Amino acid sequence: MKEKRIVIREGSRASFRNLAGCCVGTGRMDLALHREYQDELRFVQDKCGFKYIRGHGLFSDGMGIYQEYPLPQGGKRVGYCFTYLDRVMDSYREAGLKPFLELGFMPEKLTDSPNKLFYWQAHTAPPRDMSAWCALVTATLTHLKDRYGEEEVSSWPCEVWNEPNLPGFWENADKAKYLELYEATARAVKQVLPRMKVGGPAICGGEGSQQWIADFLTFCRERAVPVDMVTRHAYMGQAPERRERYTYHGMNAPEVLLAEMRASREIIDSFPEYKALPMIITEFNTSYDPFCPIHDTPYNAALTASLLSQLGDVADGYSYWTFGDVFEEKGIPTRPFHGGFGLVAAGCIPKPTLWTFSFFAGLKGDAVYRDDGAVMTLRPDGAYEGVIWAPDREEAVTVDLELPVSGSWTAFVEIVDAESGDPARLWHLMGEPASLTPEQTALLREAARPRVTALPLDHGHFRITLRPDAVARVRVMYASGESDPGYDFDWYLR
Amino acid sequence: MKEKRIVIREGSRASFRNLAGCCVGTGRMDLALHREYQDELRFVQDKCGFKYIRGHGLFSDGMGIYQEYPLPQGGKRVGYCFTYLDRVMDSYREAGLKPFLELGFMPEKLTDSPNKLFYWQAHTAPPRDMSAWCALVTATLTHLKDRYGEEEVSSWPCEVWNEPNLPGFWENADKAKYLELYEATARAVKQVLPRMKVGGPAICGGEGSQQWIADFLTFCRERAVPVDMVTRHAYMGQAPERRERYTYHGMNAPEVLLAEMRASREIIDSFPEYKALPMIITEFNTSYDPFCPIHDTPYNAALTASLLSQLGDVADGYSYWTFGDVFEEKGIPTRPFHGGFGLVAAGCIPKPTLWTFSFFAGLKGDAVYRDDGAVMTLRPDGAYEGVIWAPDREEAVTVDLELPVSGSWTAFVEIVDAESGDPARLWHLMGEPASLTPEQTALLREAARPRVTALPLDHGHFRITLRPDAVARVRVMYASGESDPGYDFDWYLR
Amino acid sequence: MKEKRIVIREGSRASFRNLAGCCVGTGRMDLALHREYQDELRFVQDKCGFKYIRGHGLFSDGMGIYQEYPLPQGGKRVGYCFTYLDRVMDSYREAGLKPFLELGFMPEKLTDSPNKLFYWQAHTAPPRDMSAWCALVTATLTHLKDRYGEEEVSSWPCEVWNEPNLPGFWENADKAKYLELYEATARAVKQVLPRMKVGGPAICGGEGSQQWIADFLTFCRERAVPVDMVTRHAYMGQAPERRERYTYHGMNAPEVLLAEMRASREIIDSFPEYKALPMIITEFNTSYDPFCPIHDTPYNAALTASLLSQLGDVADGYSYWTFGDVFEEKGIPTRPFHGGFGLVAAGCIPKPTLWTFSFFAGLKGDAVYRDDGAVMTLRPDGAYEGVIWAPDREEAVTVDLELPVSGSWTAFVEIVDAESGDPARLWHLMGEPASLTPEQTALLREAARPRVTALPLDHGHFRITLRPDAVARVRVMYASGESDPGYDFDWYLR
Amino acid sequence: MKEKRIVIREGSRASFRNLAGCCVGTGRMDLALHREYQDELRFVQDKCGFKYIRGHGLFSDGMGIYQEYPLPQGGKRVGYCFTYLDRVMDSYREAGLKPFLELGFMPEKLTDSPNKLFYWQAHTAPPRDMSAWCALVTATLTHLKDRYGEEEVSSWPCEVWNEPNLPGFWENADKAKYLELYEATARAVKQVLPRMKVGGPAICGGEGSQQWIADFLTFCRERAVPVDMVTRHAYMGQAPERRERYTYHGMNAPEVLLAEMRASREIIDSFPEYKALPMIITEFNTSYDPFCPIHDTPYNAALTASLLSQLGDVADGYSYWTFGDVFEEKGIPTRPFHGGFGLVAAGCIPKPTLWTFSFFAGLKGDAVYRDDGAVMTLRPDGAYEGVIWAPDREEAVTVDLELPVSGSWTAFVEIVDAESGDPARLWHLMGEPASLTPEQTALLREAARPRVTALPLDHGHFRITLRPDAVARVRVMYASGESDPGYDFDWYLR
Repeated sequence: MKEKRIVIREGSRASFRNLAGCCVGTGRMDLALHREYQDELRFVQDKCGFKYIRGHGLFSDGMGIYQEYPLPQGGKRVGYCFTYLDRVMDSYREAGLKPFLELGFMPEKLTDSPNKLFYWQAHTAPPRDMSAWCALVTATLTHLKDRYGEEEVSSWPCEVWNEPNLPGFWENADKAKYLELYEATARAVKQVLPRMKVGGPAICGGEGSQQWIADFLTFCRERAVPVDMVTRHAYMGQAPERRERYTYHGMNAPEVLLAEMRASREIIDSFPEYKALPMIITEFNTSYDPFCPIHDTPYNAALTASLLSQLGDVADGYSYWTFGDVFEEKGIPTRPFHGGFGLVAAGCIPKPTLWTFSFFAGLKGDAVYRDDGAVMTLRPDGAYEGVIWAPDREEAVTVDLELPVSGSWTAFVEIVDAESGDPARLWHLMGEPASLTPEQTALLREAARPRVTALPLDHGHFRITLRPDAVARVRVMYASGESDPGYDFDWYLR
Repeated sequence: MKEKRIVIREGSRASFRNLAGCCVGTGRMDLALHREYQDELRFVQDKCGFKYIRGHGLFSDGMGIYQEYPLPQGGKRVGYCFTYLDRVMDSYREAGLKPFLELGFMPEKLTDSPNKLFYWQAHTAPPRDMSAWCALVTATLTHLKDRYGEEEVSSWPCEVWNEPNLPGFWENADKAKYLELYEATARAVKQVLPRMKVGGPAICGGEGSQQWIADFLTFCRERAVPVDMVTRHAYMGQAPERRERYTYHGMNAPEVLLAEMRASREIIDSFPEYKALPMIITEFNTSYDPFCPIHDTPYNAALTASLLSQLGDVADGYSYWTFGDVFEEKGIPTRPFHGGFGLVAAGCIPKPTLWTFSFFAGLKGDAVYRDDGAVMTLRPDGAYEGVIWAPDREEAVTVDLELPVSGSWTAFVEIVDAESGDPARLWHLMGEPASLTPEQTALLREAARPRVTALPLDHGHFRITLRPDAVARVRVMYASGESDPGYDFDWYLR
Repeated sequence: MKEKRIVIREGSRASFRNLAGCCVGTGRMDLALHREYQDELRFVQDKCGFKYIRGHGLFSDGMGIYQEYPLPQGGKRVGYCFTYLDRVMDSYREAGLKPFLELGFMPEKLTDSPNKLFYWQAHTAPPRDMSAWCALVTATLTHLKDRYGEEEVSSWPCEVWNEPNLPGFWENADKAKYLELYEATARAVKQVLPRMKVGGPAICGGEGSQQWIADFLTFCRERAVPVDMVTRHAYMGQAPERRERYTYHGMNAPEVLLAEMRASREIIDSFPEYKALPMIITEFNTSYDPFCPIHDTPYNAALTASLLSQLGDVADGYSYWTFGDVFEEKGIPTRPFHGGFGLVAAGCIPKPTLWTFSFFAGLKGDAVYRDDGAVMTLRPDGAYEGVIWAPDREEAVTVDLELPVSGSWTAFVEIVDAESGDPARLWHLMGEPASLTPEQTALLREAARPRVTALPLDHGHFRITLRPDAVARVRVMYASGESDPGYDFDWYLR
Repeated sequence: MKEKRIVIREGSRASFRNLAGCCVGTGRMDLALHREYQDELRFVQDKCGFKYIRGHGLFSDGMGIYQEYPLPQGGKRVGYCFTYLDRVMDSYREAGLKPFLELGFMPEKLTDSPNKLFYWQAHTAPPRDMSAWCALVTATLTHLKDRYGEEEVSSWPCEVWNEPNLPGFWENADKAKYLELYEATARAVKQVLPRMKVGGPAICGGEGSQQWIADFLTFCRERAVPVDMVTRHAYMGQAPERRERYTYHGMNAPEVLLAEMRASREIIDSFPEYKALPMIITEFNTSYDPFCPIHDTPYNAALTASLLSQLGDVADGYSYWTFGDVFEEKGIPTRPFHGGFGLVAAGCIPKPTLWTFSFFAGLKGDAVYRDDGAVMTLRPDGAYEGVIWAPDREEAVTVDLELPVSGSWTAFVEIVDAESGDPARLWHLMGEPASLTPEQTALLREAARPRVTALPLDHGHFRITLRPDAVARVRVMYASGESDPGYDFDWYLR
């Protein structure tokens, strides 16, 4: 058992940039038409209140925007169908979200290449005709501007394509072709919405990835191409072990991921013109695989807590990949728990990591303490609120907190660990059923909540013990003590 | 630590009559117009699914049924106003409930006596004119029959008055006058609705109370007055200690209450004509005082578990007094926790006893085991389900259960005790605030839920440890074990 | 048939001060605890979006704020119970409303006088002890400040008492005593909330009422008593004819009411110190009687349209008495339609006047035309929107509108008159049932909606014919005309 | 103006078999995952209360049931994924519906043929391997039985394939191959669920279609193949005229359709073994094209009324194709009104035909009158209820109804015609916008409701005038006439 002491004094201040609620990822855009998707999204928003949402497939055929209609006299008429786009955007707004647009992938009819990806067959090759692509971008943004207003749509950032440094996502990972696409697209965007923020190159990590950033910025500078942010992805998974559809791998330490991000930042800063340019991590998670069981564990929740406490040091935004388990990249999940990216499992069952986001996104005060297992803030109403976690998988930790308060104060602690807030464990003990009965769903939802305890402070002190992988929200509030005359809480405890 | 062993074998059977969901009490009827009341009722119904609801005040002035309108030419016209009655009955039906009608108290204008009771000023004297009273009863039942149909309204039982053996409730506790009222009322009821069940004398316990039952039945027999059930009340509170509005007292053992009920039953059975007559406990609880802090405690939950496991042995129905804390008999509560009768506190915060009812009312199988701290049933789907509690306040208990099952089975256990499901304790540590902030309400609701744990069975065995006053629901279900190929739950636990 | 022509030209402007959505009246405050009340309020808010709500009874015993608790040692302890107040205020905020507080009436225990009013027994005499009254005011405002924040509560205006110039509302209509109450109360308010607006004398019309305003302001000036607004009431009913509970009377023309208000304004303006002081009509309606059938008629809707088009010329705020029919001043209504003040009948059935408010409150553009039967505005999006009504009961009117538009435009017209939007007429033809079946309620709700028609403009012209008492909303919008290739709406009409 | 007289006498009876609420059609099954689909379905169910729902695509790839997973060692594992199936079935049950299963089409991986249909690419060729197909059927039904219970699932009928007499729907319209498929499938069904009703051949009309029925039954008889019902389709469209995606055509008279159905019935009855066999019209509508503007018109509503009044004479069930406009067979609709099959347009805007179904499905009494423009019934509560329509497009009709009632009665009439209940007309006058603003959607919804009028009967008589294509619900109810003393509805009308 590790012991640890956190001392906060009157006037303590700590540096901490909390962007936990800034953005979240999603499965391909047309899945947003699904009711289950929307139920999960509303549930997650209620707990976390994200501001932006980002995912693939805006221009893929499931959204049905690009259409070719045969003409009676022969030939075809190009048309744009915004029926599903409106439905998706309306639902995002209903959920209090703005889209962080990813301009991709390719409508089947705009490419000659068979380059495809995912169970849902995303076309991932350059357009046959760049002007047809730009016309699609222009028509879509113009429609959004007409429907939601220029002011509003200008506040939606956009990113050109996704992970072009992987050949599955962009034919041959052809950098020159990507830069050509970026230039044409960014110019098209600015023509419709001059104030919309546009960025790239949306790369994932791996060999040569940092060079993509350097080349991208060099290209933009040389050709005076608009660029408002640099985007990239961040994952922690090491070499994978595959078992049928499932992937297992060890995780890099958070420091490894943070160092990689810092390196990107330094490349950007090496361009004098781009020193102030925001860097956005448009995807991050532990494993990059949607069938990796780590995603359902308290371990994932604790790892994410470490990231959320530090990512704001190295980036200007980040987006957890993804909010829910309505997701089809490697096929339709057959079980509620299968290691999907989601913060919730199907049926709106929270996974442990949901609470990490909920706890961090809820912090509204000024930071007064930060270390590698705790962030504490002071709220305007005088309460102390923070997140505390056990970053070491091998050892429980007892935390002794000392706060500069006197009088009656109580700490309210919500804990997520293998004992509470870990529904996958219960589901495993149910025999891993593929279809849940209503009774099982209800039980899993109950078991998926943090447990709440209240600890009266003793001269400003209290102690909590966290099992390995535990994540806890702590709220320390003043207990006024104005009892109703005659009321004696303790009478029946004697 | 007490140790206990429960062994259930193939074919085990136990006697257990579960009437937990049959009826629940309520504050006076016009409080049912309140939104808070209806919110609490829907919340309770969702957890417990009661069938009937019973409370005072149908004919009191708050319901506004009896009206006298001045006539232009002088004099007055008697009218009946069913606006609020319809609203209340509609809301009960919306909540899936039928009323168990209590015919009382007296409209102010139908009595000359100042005999009054409660903060809300219930008039509790006989009618000035029995025919005016009977006209009121007749008009009301006729209206209900017209609105809801004879078939439906005939399934609503009715009881004449409440606790006439107390002078506060019935002027001078005048037995002869009560019998007169009973006769006139019962005959009026049967004239409108011959199949409606009618009963009395609705007495509370105390000296002379059993004699009331004997006298009531003698009277009915002699004058051939309709009687379909005998009704009475049951409380456990000993001599009270008062502190301002609050009451504290020790509790009789459940056996004392059960013996009292058995004595009533024996009196009924001593009348050959009434041997099959149902006896209904139209009110029961631990303390009879709406400002007794016991009602908010796990102790109350455990005591109630003992009662629910045995009350069906001695009565044909019973009604916990009351479902919620919208209640004004001793004044408006100023605090969310004040020892009110309710299963929920204001703001739909569950109290521990709610779960006792929810757990018992949810038992649908056949009993296979019963003792003074446990009831176990076997469900049609093969699962074992039960309620287990710690009846001894001084000592925790470890229960070792053995079930006749083989293969993978898991016990899902939901526990309510001072650690979880005890919101009053949290509220006490908040400083006992009178007005809750939204943040406090949310915290209390979270803390008010049972904690869930899952225990895999070992050759049909599992053990649970209960703290004093704990009440637990246990569901033992088969875990099929059909893993998805490649899925390994344990990989990340290693 | 009257003919009328409305010509609007490019750049037309008209003076029109639209305060339709500023405030609405309500039955006594504790009725806000009722679910039916809250359902009606939400329904009305959805259509009209009022900002403030004002009604009687804040300090009456139904709200239960002032309490005296007996002490064990004898004597009593004064306490304030804010349980119901919090519930009511929370529900107002949920409905998007702020309270316009009326400080009154008197808790029974704070007065020795039997002066009472209404079915619900409002105590309407001065306090036995002014300091006890002030302590009640202070405690209540302090509690509200603590719960909702000083910023928020400072934006709630408050008025001292109601109609003190009537002896039913204020014992002997004693002006000196009222001024004394006003001074003490206004000073108490400002001590807790210096920025809260306070006003009086909340008089109704009738003989001597204008003198009250003069005396009130003279008093305030002389003693430097805080006063932020002058408040008064306005009704149109002439001498009443009574039939049992119902009242019938002819109505003054709107001009009479407006002249009375103008006279009050002139009195205020005659005080140099109070020239800029707002005058608020804290109650207005046609009849002042809650059982006057006019309130349910299209006639009432048309009269109210005349008022809403002009009241902003003479006052700085006004409040229709009342939003709904949960109301008990003259007893509980026994029928859904009985001439209650409400904009909706029980069961959320809209009455014609609801639409007058909805139409006016919805006008967001700049006025371009106003006469005694029409207000037209130009919206920022280029559409023309207005309310048109038939102010003459004897004659239908055909209105010919000419707008400065070219191309395809369509007028969408919603009409309320005896043919649609008049549920009382349907209910009358149902036989005036006291209790509605679900089928009847559904029919009445359907029949209570305006009918919608669409009229294509012909070179900027269109005509609508209004029956007597009709009120119509008109929205004239550009019809873009971009048909889908191949779509022919008219094919099946040929 | 045509005049018509309907006389109903005491004891009148008419033959009329009302199956209006028995079943409704739907776009392909995985569209049921969409929230818009579910919103429309709930809306329609609220108005019409259908019992069954039937559509294509259970086994198509969008539902994702049939899966092949690659194995690490090479080769593949067949798996069935019921994630989406459960979600769809749960949503149907939530909406109060049972599925009428259509077993089809073919998973891409189970066929070698490129035969495909629809924008959504349904594979419509026989299985490569009949045993793989049967395994899929068996696995799916077994799963449904496990999840919803044998009793429940046995009440869901099933039909083998859809319109095999068209080569687009079944490769080469190969009858022998269809019979082979039918036999294998029907036997597989009965093995899992012996009581499930199975049927075919699900043909559409056209040349040779009746012969399919004869051949189908001959085949079943000869090989003793289970068959519980004969299924076929019925449409009224004549030779189409195409304009881009849109289709226009004249309609056959209802008699033509009825004669075609009667001919099918006679074929069935010519088989002595199958005389009692139910015949189900598993699809019907006016036009068979999802971009035919007739579907949005009052004309369609009136034609459907004619069908609903007579279809029960010739068939034992029928299913309108389709409930809503979430539908992709000819591509995604780009406009809310485009002639889709749905009873509602996108955004839950009712089309006229919705009301025809709502009016007919609501008839609960015994028929007392039927002709080619009216059905009247007598309800158990004594009210007369019916549907009346104008079947002649060229001429309005005035209907004079005489009912055997005396005393005060009122007819409540809801009318749908070009004036009310015709939102497509309003939308046309809006300029046929592709994307609706919230204001436009609200206006269209309002305009889409029937107008309600109330007509007091004069000695049992009343008259209504219907414009061409009008459909009206008529409810004639007793008006009790018990006025509240003093209430005078007419006072303000004088």
